Amino acid sequence: MTSDTMTNTNSQPASLDPLLVLTKQAMARTNDVIIERLGSDVPLIPQLAGHLVAAGGKRMRPMLCLAGALLGQHSSGGAPGSDLPEAAHLLAASVEFIHSATLLHDDVIDMSDKRRGRDTANAIWGNEASVLVGDFLFARAFQLMVLTGDISVLDMLSSASARITEGEIKQMSLAGEPASPLEDYLDVITNKTAILFAAASESGCRVGGGTDAECLAMHNYGLSLGRAFQICDDALDYAATSDGMGKNTGDDFRDGKITMPVILAWGDGSAQERAFWQRTQAESDINEGDFEEAVAILNRHNAIERSLAAAEQEVELALKSLSGLGDTALTSALMSAALFSVKRSH
Amino acid sequence: MTSDTMTNTNSQPASLDPLLVLTKQAMARTNDVIIERLGSDVPLIPQLAGHLVAAGGKRMRPMLCLAGALLGQHSSGGAPGSDLPEAAHLLAASVEFIHSATLLHDDVIDMSDKRRGRDTANAIWGNEASVLVGDFLFARAFQLMVLTGDISVLDMLSSASARITEGEIKQMSLAGEPASPLEDYLDVITNKTAILFAAASESGCRVGGGTDAECLAMHNYGLSLGRAFQICDDALDYAATSDGMGKNTGDDFRDGKITMPVILAWGDGSAQERAFWQRTQAESDINEGDFEEAVAILNRHNAIERSLAAAEQEVELALKSLSGLGDTALTSALMSAALFSVKRSH
Repeated sequence: MTSDTMTNTNSQPASLDPLLVLTKQAMARTNDVIIERLGSDVPLIPQLAGHLVAAGGKRMRPMLCLAGALLGQHSSGGAPGSDLPEAAHLLAASVEFIHSATLLHDDVIDMSDKRRGRDTANAIWGNEASVLVGDFLFARAFQLMVLTGDISVLDMLSSASARITEGEIKQMSLAGEPASPLEDYLDVITNKTAILFAAASESGCRVGGGTDAECLAMHNYGLSLGRAFQICDDALDYAATSDGMGKNTGDDFRDGKITMPVILAWGDGSAQERAFWQRTQAESDINEGDFEEAVAILNRHNAIERSLAAAEQEVELALKSLSGLGDTALTSALMSAALFSVKRSH
Repeated sequence: MTSDTMTNTNSQPASLDPLLVLTKQAMARTNDVIIERLGSDVPLIPQLAGHLVAAGGKRMRPMLCLAGALLGQHSSGGAPGSDLPEAAHLLAASVEFIHSATLLHDDVIDMSDKRRGRDTANAIWGNEASVLVGDFLFARAFQLMVLTGDISVLDMLSSASARITEGEIKQMSLAGEPASPLEDYLDVITNKTAILFAAASESGCRVGGGTDAECLAMHNYGLSLGRAFQICDDALDYAATSDGMGKNTGDDFRDGKITMPVILAWGDGSAQERAFWQRTQAESDINEGDFEEAVAILNRHNAIERSLAAAEQEVELALKSLSGLGDTALTSALMSAALFSVKRSH
């Protein structure tokens, strides 16, 4: 990471910890809302949804929602340390439900049997139940938004939900197409990942009482952070060892899912290399040793490093978005979180 | 159909035609909204969704929504024949999108390859695309509701959406259980079918400007109509020949889906009959001639006729719900539509 924009952020640690600390109390209340609102007379719903939700993960999206609410509350003169309005917790839970619904459906679509090191819901309860409980979580998410009484957050999150599915459907159409334009990949990750980060951050700021400028800043921050996160995650699928991330290296390669490293390597590729991508990605003809060969080709073109550099550029944009929001513990924590989103590359 | 409540409705034809005529102009505008709002930069979305939506069907749910809006408009002093507010069309399209989303997901879950006589979307484009486009339609439905600007309709339809999935999940848990209580079956059909009829009718009335009492009456009307419709549909799966309804007789039997006729016949069944249901429904051990045997057992206990009588009782409740709404062409048309919902049994 280089240049002038970084001068005053070099001192920030690349860590999620400061944001975790600042949102800890609020997140505890949000977690209660999540558990309460998973309730249903139909026992399979809390069982199945609880399995996924209890598996945890970093809860980045509700955390960003709460951070947005804290920012809005502070700017609108709320006493520091005072409780957030209940709407913020309803909204944070709602964002987590939307995310959980997409995970349930993704696992059905990808026929995954492991997530975060545990059996997936579809592996335990079957695809039917996962599809339907995903639908339930989605509907429940909108019920929670209705309870906030703020139609503007319904606008943001219904649009975000439509764009998530547009991103996922477009991703399907890129599958097996290593000659896909980079713009199409960026469009996919913006929709399928970044828009929900943006909507979570922005809508939280809105219910917290933030100004239009603050809400827009949080939107842009979330959008860049989400892009950075997804680009990095995709690049590491060709780099990281199978570890606590719960994602197995090489999954995208084996599924013919086209991400930035492959698109960059295709662009610079020799005829022989393109034939390799064509065979493995377009024709799904993958033999032993092919993944290692893929990594060797990517390294020959610095395609993983260049992808991570693109993620870092998004982080710089995220930091820039925060520049008008003052120099507070919260904005520092948001900066650290943005830097953390690509930390796994080092 | 008997007794005093019917005295002044005996003259009503059991027909959808009067309602089709009264809502024809409004439905044309709603159909335009449906086509417009299926648009997306991702071509597969209008292709796949258009395949389902173009397949038609009677569009009962948006029709009820528009009927509710016409009722509300009339009562709030709107000029007869004047255009409905755009919110009514957005809402009617939204209701159709929710219904279409559930159909796409149902066909994936049931692994159906035919609907209304045509190949299903999942048979043509695959399960992945059907799951995701279903999610898209659901999200788009909420975007349309947001555009109405009326948070009360978001409340009704997000709750309805959650209950639809609860009904479907509970239906899964009854599968293969011929000893299920009748209450559980009624709970399933209320949630998976009737609630959306109720919410469509009620929310339409709301955006049309109806009073609370009118909205409640339309809710109750839709609820009873929806129950009647589903009980009848389920009973006919053991009675009708494969025809224009696009549903093959015997599907529920072969899938172990437990509906009213089986529950009634189980209740009255001999040990030998119960063993038959146990083998075919619980153990999915179905041989040639078993469907005919099932129909014979059901007829021995008048189980199909008794189910249709239960549907007719629901129709009577639907008619009763309309009793405070005056004697207009619209209320007459709503009566005829209710009578039509069980007409297919005769």
